[in-house]
Amino acid sequence: MPSLDSLFRPESVAIVGASPGKSGQMFLDSVLSSDFKGKVHAVNSAAQEVSGLAGYRSLLDIPGKVDYVVCCAPAPAVPQLVRDCAEKNVTAMAVFTAGFAESGTDRGKELEAEVSRLARASGVRVIGPNCLGIYSPGIGLAFASDFPLERGRVGLMCQSGGNFVYLVRAAAYRGVRFSKAISYGNACDVNECDLLEYFLEDEETDAVAVYMEGTKGGQRLSQVLRSLAAEKLVVVLKGGHSPAGARTAASHTGSLAGSDQVWDELLHQSGAIRVYSLEETVDMLVTLSFLPGVQGRKVCVLGGGGGASVLATDDWADYGFGLPPLAEVLRNELRSTVPTEAGLILGNPLDLSGLAYSDGFYNLSRKLVAMEGFVDLSVVHISLGMAFWSSASSFGEQIDAFRDAMIKIAGYSGRPLAVVMQYSVTGWDWQKGVEDIQRGCAAAGLPVYHSMSGAAKAVDRFLRYREAEARG
Amino acid sequence: MPSLDSLFRPESVAIVGASPGKSGQMFLDSVLSSDFKGKVHAVNSAAQEVSGLAGYRSLLDIPGKVDYVVCCAPAPAVPQLVRDCAEKNVTAMAVFTAGFAESGTDRGKELEAEVSRLARASGVRVIGPNCLGIYSPGIGLAFASDFPLERGRVGLMCQSGGNFVYLVRAAAYRGVRFSKAISYGNACDVNECDLLEYFLEDEETDAVAVYMEGTKGGQRLSQVLRSLAAEKLVVVLKGGHSPAGARTAASHTGSLAGSDQVWDELLHQSGAIRVYSLEETVDMLVTLSFLPGVQGRKVCVLGGGGGASVLATDDWADYGFGLPPLAEVLRNELRSTVPTEAGLILGNPLDLSGLAYSDGFYNLSRKLVAMEGFVDLSVVHISLGMAFWSSASSFGEQIDAFRDAMIKIAGYSGRPLAVVMQYSVTGWDWQKGVEDIQRGCAAAGLPVYHSMSGAAKAVDRFLRYREAEARG
Repeated sequence: MPSLDSLFRPESVAIVGASPGKSGQMFLDSVLSSDFKGKVHAVNSAAQEVSGLAGYRSLLDIPGKVDYVVCCAPAPAVPQLVRDCAEKNVTAMAVFTAGFAESGTDRGKELEAEVSRLARASGVRVIGPNCLGIYSPGIGLAFASDFPLERGRVGLMCQSGGNFVYLVRAAAYRGVRFSKAISYGNACDVNECDLLEYFLEDEETDAVAVYMEGTKGGQRLSQVLRSLAAEKLVVVLKGGHSPAGARTAASHTGSLAGSDQVWDELLHQSGAIRVYSLEETVDMLVTLSFLPGVQGRKVCVLGGGGGASVLATDDWADYGFGLPPLAEVLRNELRSTVPTEAGLILGNPLDLSGLAYSDGFYNLSRKLVAMEGFVDLSVVHISLGMAFWSSASSFGEQIDAFRDAMIKIAGYSGRPLAVVMQYSVTGWDWQKGVEDIQRGCAAAGLPVYHSMSGAAKAVDRFLRYREAEARG
Repeated sequence: MPSLDSLFRPESVAIVGASPGKSGQMFLDSVLSSDFKGKVHAVNSAAQEVSGLAGYRSLLDIPGKVDYVVCCAPAPAVPQLVRDCAEKNVTAMAVFTAGFAESGTDRGKELEAEVSRLARASGVRVIGPNCLGIYSPGIGLAFASDFPLERGRVGLMCQSGGNFVYLVRAAAYRGVRFSKAISYGNACDVNECDLLEYFLEDEETDAVAVYMEGTKGGQRLSQVLRSLAAEKLVVVLKGGHSPAGARTAASHTGSLAGSDQVWDELLHQSGAIRVYSLEETVDMLVTLSFLPGVQGRKVCVLGGGGGASVLATDDWADYGFGLPPLAEVLRNELRSTVPTEAGLILGNPLDLSGLAYSDGFYNLSRKLVAMEGFVDLSVVHISLGMAFWSSASSFGEQIDAFRDAMIKIAGYSGRPLAVVMQYSVTGWDWQKGVEDIQRGCAAAGLPVYHSMSGAAKAVDRFLRYREAEARG
């Protein structure tokens, strides 16, 4: 079977079913507004002009070559379209259209089987049906206008279109960048095993995130996943792990979800990191993208709030991390600079509520984070309690000062540093402020988490993966 | 010991240490900008005017009576201030100042012991030290300008000031309202047992949220908590459950945190609901405030996204809930109105991605939610995948339509309905949109959760509490 690499590098794209006002036009507009440099064509049965492009009545009417087709045509038209693709020497077609095996109807199952047969016979690779297809930042090809067009080192394969969009957006918003990504739906031709094998070979991909609901080949999946996880970091979210969830998965992508015990063994033996929610998946991608150098379980927590510091200590302890005490010399220095009445916890955790956003905070944090041999990871958190008297104008300045301090400290120390921020807690100004901090930190290569326990869980999973790897 | 009720109903307040530019002035400004109708006085050693008020040199110089004092004066001045309070017949004093037992110094411990002795000898009730004191919406008294001044039925007692502010803000932002709330710090006089007893008697309080780090009287705590939990719903977050966290708690509020095994038994036997994070605490308060009528474990999930529906099914299944199948007659109706090509899951969960925000969505949801005997709780979720092609203007309309539909459905059906929304996933427009939905839904008495698993966990805990109650 030829490499799937050409799927991610088409030089010309055609959207079939690109009628004005329909989903095909939305696909078309997204591709037109992305950074794709190749030719883009529109096909619709009425040969109507759409988004400023001529509409071809048939794929076969397009002059010149077409590498990648996105199909938004009705399901019954899809088999003929595979034949047209073969005639036109199209490399791959992503079928957005649903109404195949996932519908549970005989007609849908037959259609899917036919598409699958035609794909195999012709060599045209079919992605889906019931999927969104390819997002390939390297060639500027995206199907939503807010997907980043910068290239990264994370591959993504996702059986659900909605979850694909969530993962790309949420991870991208926190600074993660992708090498190649694919939403692959019902997997009637290009399937999870093909994609895992592809990512194993792909030199542009260092880590792979997987959302899957089922497989048709457990034996092969087990082998491929094991090979991939031996070379690259793999994060797997299995949708439909409960019996009820497995039934829902069957109506979603027509997947045979299988028993969770079997999946758990398969994933565990493969060496992949198993996660259980979209949020955990994003936390893992943030961790492997921005904290690849974390070596151990000693953590220093600094930032705002006594009660927040107590709960933060619990969170790290719950996941097997320790907070080593601050050297006595540093405690003395702290005692001489911080007034006792401030009621701060001068140790590890270090509660700097009253000093946050100040030069004192910056200098102390810089010193602690940079200290060789003290901890493996420093975590700065900001808590709402600190900001409760701020006026709107000073709040904006504090946000800027905090963000800039974090970025400077990270640059100065070169040591692992993470930021934890509480979200969605109070009114608009605060919310916009924490988003500004996140954006700035993420752009500077700093991991941002939305809860302390989320950070601890992700770093723990990452370290357990590294420990297992070290044991061989 | 007299009731603590008068603590929450002062008719006149004095801020001691209210010097211009200091924390005392911030307290003063917050009280002045709240809805407190009584007299407000400022005391500072220089007798300086502050925020437009005359500054008295001493508490004793204030003409007329003072019921409640907030002390921001330095720690060594606090014992004399208790004596002044006694002379002035002050009911209670909240000591914001820190530098007492939590500092770990002999001087700090001695000072706290002295304040405690003076309080007991004089009958002046001291709250703290190292606390924020009273938030009493019923009399319009608040110490942060974004605390709601509407009264509710939830009591809150919190040993940490920062966590107090988080809990009030995050819960209020999601529609929870409080009867009385207190940040009680080191608990040198008014302690956790006094407060639990008070909330047991208080007729304005139906449920109590507790954040505590330790106790000086385990025996009494066990009895009082049991009495309270027998009458009212009690949610407890114990800070410092790990050994490391317990050490942090000792530096925070001087608490003896004790072993977690003892705490776990104590809390379990008392009948309180134990939670493990601030986020879980807020989810519980939202649940008991807005879903008191949930009777069982049958759930209907409707809204957007096939993959999101699969994961939602898993989340509810993980917490022991079932999604009963949709009646065949309704499935047929759905099949006749929804095109197969849409690739939707027409069952329970019901994936309405393509129809979301439409009249069809509204009508179907209304019918499902109102259906007697079908489920105990309906949950609507919106997922990002749905919105990925929206233009900015239509997005705003969709937000309004979705929010209005939810509010109408809840009003029409009168049955338990919850909304789940993904937060902090992508750019600003989306984020502001979900905040708008949350605000509107919360104001209309609808519970909003930030993840499906958070909702399932909270409703499960609530039902387990009710089940235990029913068993007696």
